[in-house]
Formats: sequence, structure tokens, C-alpha cells
Amino acid sequence: MQRDVTKPFAFILKAQDGRARLGEIAMPRGRIRTPAFMPVGTAATVKAMLPETVRATGADIILANTYHLMLRPGAERIAKLGGLHRFMGWDGPILTDSGGYQVMSLSKLRRIQEHGVTFQSHIDGATHLLTPERAIEVQCLLGADIQMVLDECTPFPATHDEARSSMELSMRWAERSKQAFQSMAAPGQALFGIVQGSIYPDLREQSAGVLQDVGFDGYAIGGLAVGEGQEAMLDTVTLTTSVLPEDRPRYLMGVGTPQDMLAAIARGIDMFDCVMPTRSGRHNQAFTWGGRLNLRNARYADDQSPLDAESACPAAKYSRAYLHHLVKSGEVLGAMLLSWANVHFYQELIARAREAINGRAFAAFAEDVTRRYSASNGGEEE
Amino acid sequence: MQRDVTKPFAFILKAQDGRARLGEIAMPRGRIRTPAFMPVGTAATVKAMLPETVRATGADIILANTYHLMLRPGAERIAKLGGLHRFMGWDGPILTDSGGYQVMSLSKLRRIQEHGVTFQSHIDGATHLLTPERAIEVQCLLGADIQMVLDECTPFPATHDEARSSMELSMRWAERSKQAFQSMAAPGQALFGIVQGSIYPDLREQSAGVLQDVGFDGYAIGGLAVGEGQEAMLDTVTLTTSVLPEDRPRYLMGVGTPQDMLAAIARGIDMFDCVMPTRSGRHNQAFTWGGRLNLRNARYADDQSPLDAESACPAAKYSRAYLHHLVKSGEVLGAMLLSWANVHFYQELIARAREAINGRAFAAFAEDVTRRYSASNGGEEE
Repeated sequence: MQRDVTKPFAFILKAQDGRARLGEIAMPRGRIRTPAFMPVGTAATVKAMLPETVRATGADIILANTYHLMLRPGAERIAKLGGLHRFMGWDGPILTDSGGYQVMSLSKLRRIQEHGVTFQSHIDGATHLLTPERAIEVQCLLGADIQMVLDECTPFPATHDEARSSMELSMRWAERSKQAFQSMAAPGQALFGIVQGSIYPDLREQSAGVLQDVGFDGYAIGGLAVGEGQEAMLDTVTLTTSVLPEDRPRYLMGVGTPQDMLAAIARGIDMFDCVMPTRSGRHNQAFTWGGRLNLRNARYADDQSPLDAESACPAAKYSRAYLHHLVKSGEVLGAMLLSWANVHFYQELIARAREAINGRAFAAFAEDVTRRYSASNGGEEE
Repeated sequence: MQRDVTKPFAFILKAQDGRARLGEIAMPRGRIRTPAFMPVGTAATVKAMLPETVRATGADIILANTYHLMLRPGAERIAKLGGLHRFMGWDGPILTDSGGYQVMSLSKLRRIQEHGVTFQSHIDGATHLLTPERAIEVQCLLGADIQMVLDECTPFPATHDEARSSMELSMRWAERSKQAFQSMAAPGQALFGIVQGSIYPDLREQSAGVLQDVGFDGYAIGGLAVGEGQEAMLDTVTLTTSVLPEDRPRYLMGVGTPQDMLAAIARGIDMFDCVMPTRSGRHNQAFTWGGRLNLRNARYADDQSPLDAESACPAAKYSRAYLHHLVKSGEVLGAMLLSWANVHFYQELIARAREAINGRAFAAFAEDVTRRYSASNGGEEE
């Protein structure tokens, strides 16, 4: 699919069921049905999957990591090679994070100052400076369709003072990001702001207000799923979505489990990303309609049943016995099949969530899945 | 494809070009065009490839390893789960080796006696006994379409006396294997004998004679590509094929490079297996029509050209720059794409060899490929 710039970024709300929203983002590289789950393609690959396989699971958009790509192979190199879409063979929309989160979680010797963050690469120790302007420049070099402002992911726990100071820095960076975006981005590209403020309602509200004054194509909620627990996370989501505009997509970054996603959809979230389906797939874990399974468990050695009889994924048709054998033997195919089945499950989950919203039956759907995932023997094993 | 037992094992010779042969093996699970290259699916998976992808490269048959499968997940278990084809999702013919070679190369504390070989598993140290009868029983439990007699892979170098004594043991085991096969095998399954005798012409000739007296569906040449060098290997192939029957397929075990396969085809070999395309693919190496490439080499970092412009393989359409990035980053997708491209190359190579034999142009074809693979900058890098 070529970029069609006569189709600029637009968000259409199609139905609501309680606070759950069904919508569609139109973009030059195609539409994104919401609620949307974005598989994570960290280093320009959704790990252990072919791009056409990712597409076939039902993914409309993937996420790639600015931090990883700026370090290796380098944003200027990818630009010279024709951009990220061509580089990795994915022709749909790509959202890139700003690199801020990985700078905090992966890099060494980071130092945050007003102008930006200085850090050492986790790959070769080289020193890099990431400013709001450079974060946008990198995302433009990659050719990202949806770009994110540079923010500081406030660590948890943080005092109110720490959280306010961190949030305010992120808000100043958000404004600089917007200015840089306006001077650098191509027609049809979009920029999302990121609400910060830890678990403090007043700070979240204040952050959402500042971002709306600056004006963004969509609004993300950052700084969650970092140890605050599900209740605090959902409370913050409830509060934050209530102060975000209705006519813009809302993206809960880095979330999550099937249960967390459904709970967040019920609170008005439209977009998600998470490494869970692929990372779990490389660690013998499967998400199925019957719950989560650990294929390394000896109980599957003679189990002829398919991984997930309820799934339409070709990978889920392999027997549990075969998958057990593959993971016990350390075979690459085990990681390939489980990653595929998991991404497919996440896409099926989100597609059924969309159907349920459309049919005004979301609450019952969410309850059913949540029950399957918390049942003692269908829930998370081990 | 279901087994069609109205199509028993049959070998049809269709054309000859010098000593190179074009043929077809008919079997209950489908035909095998010869010369044939069999990708190796050691532990019930052609490493890092989906079965449907292996099939799409043009492979008619794959090889699986008796040694690995009897140890994990166990032959009785696979039988209980419906056999190897169902277990791994491959519906074409499967050839299994007898386990003899891996016992020599992988196991610990092996002891060869007249009745069989006792060894310790390389996985858990458990003691196992492999006899000619058990090797056939295991292959029947797996449901292998083409089975191999248990043999001792004579180490290289070996004195004439050592080689004779080893070969004679293998011949006694071959006869016992045949008897066991006759009492256990299903209709349409086939058994191949294995010629041994190291690099000694008189022993090879004697071995080929004994095997023909016993009578097999096909004849393999074992004990080569173990350090004797290309010249000695090809001399042995030339001699051995000249004393094998015309109306049975001939299989050169564990070979090899594109050059070695073409040289062996020119000497009357019909079947090959080798881990090289998949193992190389997991170690950054690509086989292309321009020669062998090491994708880790920095020269490819900015190389926009496809892996192999001359290949029809979807994996070969990715840029060298992207593949370089994947292998540098240790991404699973690098191993997936290179394994796929390499197996595809091997199948294209063998398909073009068949066409060349049919067109009586094999010598020129083999010379062209051999030249590409020995040219200084198109040959094996590093």
C-alpha cells in the first residue's frame, strides 16, 4: 500500500457501549480499526514473525522503538535505505515511541536536563543526546506514521512533588515536540501527546489540560503499568479518559494482559501496545481462549489436542504435544508458532471486543474473557 | 495428502545425460523428483521453518533423525500421537536415518558389539541399546516412508583392516535390518541399504555386492564427507555408483555443498541430504546464485540490493541491509529468512539440475554453478 495523502489522519467514532468506544483512524497508509492492538516490532521486526504473518493476524498497525532503531542500524541509515516501512517490509501504518521509556529502562548513565536526556547506549556504551527535537527528527527519518512526543516516564513510586516536576518537564518537552513536528513532518503524519502525572488525579488532569492546549492528533497515557498495580492503573485511566477529548484516539502505552486491555477499553481506551504476546511466545507461554498455558509443562507431552481449538490461527492448530516437544528441544519453530498464535489471539481478542461494542454487549464479553483468564486451571499457569 | 498404498515404492529413470540421471520415485505419500535434495528435519522440524514453507521451496521429501526422535520425544510416544507426519505437520514422504551416524557423533560412552550399539544419550545420559532390529522398529513407529539400515559409520581415517571389519559388521546388520523390516514395515514403505568401505575400492565394491544380494529398494553411500577430502569422496562415488544397479535410486548421505552435489550428480547420484542450508542460515550465511555471502559482514550495512535477485524465494527479496541488521541484532527473523532462502536455493539448484539433465546440458550447468561458487568474490566469504 502506498501512502495516500488525500487521506490525512482522521478519527471517526462509530459506536459506544458505556464508555467503550468503537472507531476507526484513517491514515495515508490505511485504516486502523479501534480498539486496536499494536504488536511491538522493537528493532524493525515483530520478533520471530514475518511481516505478512503479522498482517494476516489482523494487525492494522505495528509499533517500532525509536531508541533501538536510532542506536542500530541508525535513523539516518534507515532514511537512506528508503524508510522503515520499506526496510522491514511492512506497508501499513507504524507508530514509533519517542525513545524516552527505553532511555529510562535500558540505557546506562542517563542524565535528564531541561534540554534533553544524555545517555549511554546499552549496545556499545556510546554517548547520545535525545532532545524533543531529535526524537521527532528520528521519527521523521524513520517515516513513522504516528509519532510520540518525548517524555520522561516518571518512575513509580514518586512523591507528588517528584511527579509534578517530572510531568511539567514532559509538558515543556511536549510543546517543543509539537513545534519540531510542525516544521519537519510530512503531510498525513500524526503526533500524539502523552499524559503523565503518576497516580495523582490532579496532576493527570493538569497534564491532559496542557496537552489539549498545545493540541495533538491523539493522546496517550504514559507512566502506567510500572508497578502501581491494576487498581491504581485503572483508576488513573478512568480519571484521565474523562478529561480527554472525545474526538481523538486514546492510547494506553505498554498495556497489557487481556484482562487489563478489556478493563481499559471499558474506560474509554482505543489503542494498546505490549510485548507480552511475542515475549511470552519466546518463553513457552501461550494465550488461548481457554486461558494461558505454559507449554513446557509435562502435562502436554501426550496431549493431542490443538493449542487452541477456538482460534482460527494456523499456528494454534499444532498439537500441544508437538509444541511441548519443540519448546523442550529449544527449537526455533516453538518460538515462531507460539509468537504467531499469541499475536493472533490478541488480534482476535481485540476484534471480538470491537464486535461486542458494536453489538452493545461489551460488558458481558469482557466479563467472560476475564473469567476465563482468572479461572484456577485456565488462568495463568505456574 | 493421505498414503495411497496402490502406489508402492517405484523408481522410474526418465533421462540420462552422461552418468547424470533424471528420475522419479513414486510412493504412497507422493512422488519424489530426482535428483532430490532432502532438507533435514532433525528433531521433527526443519529448523526455523514452517512445514508449508519447506514444501513451497519445492521439497518433495524431508529427512528426520531416528537418534534424536527416539531420545526425545520418543518413538513410542510419536506412534501414539499418530506418527511423525501428523506430529510435525508434513504430509509428504519422510526418510529417516537409522541413528547409527548420530550415535557415533553425538552420544557418549558408545560401545559397538555384534548385536548392536550401547550408548548414553547426549540429552540426559540415559543408556540405550540400538540394534538393527530396534532401528527398524523405531523407524516403523515413526511411520517413515524410506527407512535406512543400521550401519557403523566407519571413522576416517581407517586402515584397510579396520574398514573391512567395520564394513562387514554393517553388512551383517544390513541383513538383519532387512529381515526386521520384512516383518514390521507397512505396505509401501521402503528400505535402503548403505554401502560402506571407507575409501577402499575393493571394500566398496564388496559392500555393494553384499547389499544387492540381500536386495534393497535403494542404495545409499555412507561414510563419506567425514574428512577424506573432495577428491577421495568423488573417486569413491564414481566407483560405487558403477557397481550399483541402474534401476534403484542412489543416495549420497550427508552431502553437501552445491559443488559437491553437482559433482555427485555427474557421477550418478540421485538423492542428497545436508544440514548445510539450515545450519548456515542460523549462522548468518546465505547461499545465492552469486555465491555464498556472510550477512554479518559490514559491507552489507547499506546494501539496498535484495539477498538474491536471481531467486524466486520471498525471503531472498529482503535487502541485504535489512538482513545484516537482523543478524547483527540477533533477531530470530534473520535465522528464519536465511534458512528459508537457503533451502529454497538448494531446491532451485536441484530443480535446475533436473532441467539441465533433461535438456542434455548438465555439464555446462554444473560448470557454471561451480565457477560461481569458486570465484574469489562470489565464493565462500571469510
